[in-house]
Amino acid sequence: MHTLHLALIHHPVLNKRGDIISSAVTNLDLHDISRLARTYGIGSFFVVTPLQDQQRLVKQLIDHWIRGAGGSYNPKRKQALEGISVRSTLEEVQSELAAGRTDEANLLTIATSARRHHRSIGTDRLRQWIREEHPCLLMLGTAWGLANSVLEQADHILEPIRGRSDYNHLSVRSAAAIILDRLSCFDSLK
Amino acid sequence: MHTLHLALIHHPVLNKRGDIISSAVTNLDLHDISRLARTYGIGSFFVVTPLQDQQRLVKQLIDHWIRGAGGSYNPKRKQALEGISVRSTLEEVQSELAAGRTDEANLLTIATSARRHHRSIGTDRLRQWIREEHPCLLMLGTAWGLANSVLEQADHILEPIRGRSDYNHLSVRSAAAIILDRLSCFDSLK
Repeated sequence: MHTLHLALIHHPVLNKRGDIISSAVTNLDLHDISRLARTYGIGSFFVVTPLQDQQRLVKQLIDHWIRGAGGSYNPKRKQALEGISVRSTLEEVQSELAAGRTDEANLLTIATSARRHHRSIGTDRLRQWIREEHPCLLMLGTAWGLANSVLEQADHILEPIRGRSDYNHLSVRSAAAIILDRLSCFDSLK
Repeated sequence: MHTLHLALIHHPVLNKRGDIISSAVTNLDLHDISRLARTYGIGSFFVVTPLQDQQRLVKQLIDHWIRGAGGSYNPKRKQALEGISVRSTLEEVQSELAAGRTDEANLLTIATSARRHHRSIGTDRLRQWIREEHPCLLMLGTAWGLANSVLEQADHILEPIRGRSDYNHLSVRSAAAIILDRLSCFDSLK
């Protein structure tokens, strides 16, 4: 799935009251999602935060596991975490990915949301684009989810994950795991 | 999936060197997996640790989110975390589940592992038992995975998760998310 890219977004996202905030980075998000990205052969994994101190924290964490004591203690984590790129804004991520395109295909941006929207698309459609190696950027929101501006500007919004109940309050780590696994089953049924 | 039960096991599990240890409880495991259990309509979610101080920590965490400040701050977390049962041993969990059976069906215990074993079973088989409402206990290991004794005593071992690369070092949180989602798609293809 090398034409699928992931962005874990810390701004602009919502807090519990619906205000737009910059959320703090959660260490385990980086561990879990970078290991998922590696497992599913994702093109790139961007951690997006405009906050300088949070960017430093992420870089320190990566450095510990790549060059520091963590790297020799656990080389498998090193392999995963060295795939993380830190960027200040979503626009930066999009222009970087768009600049890398040499063919005619435009980058498709796909937002995720725990709610259904009138223009939500099914997993099948996104899976088809990935199978056709169309470049796609999947945007995951932290805190209470992506701000409306991100949803509105996205080319598409992915339908929410439904389990077997009306409860759908999963962590962004769990959502990332389930979405990547659902997207990956395009050559054989699992 | 009310006849499927989950146990997150902290003893006996392996450390990096393959020694049998009791691992420490990770807060986010409880949050993420209890939310998954609720989303997928799991029968029960047991956290297994013989360590008294770890049991106290888990109970304090649950208490904070059920009765304390957390419960009013975030009722959705309360709904998830109140589904957690803390037990000292796997045997305790198994006898409790077996004692609850009034019909002829025996509890099937299914271990998980990141490695393939000669008696690994596919997700399809487990999904079929769940569809038939056969009581099943799915055992997830923390740290470097379940001790061999647990694998040997289990009725079955579930095949490891494969993504789209040869890297398969997922967190137990990600593994739980992917396994529950794969097991749940028994009435329509997702």
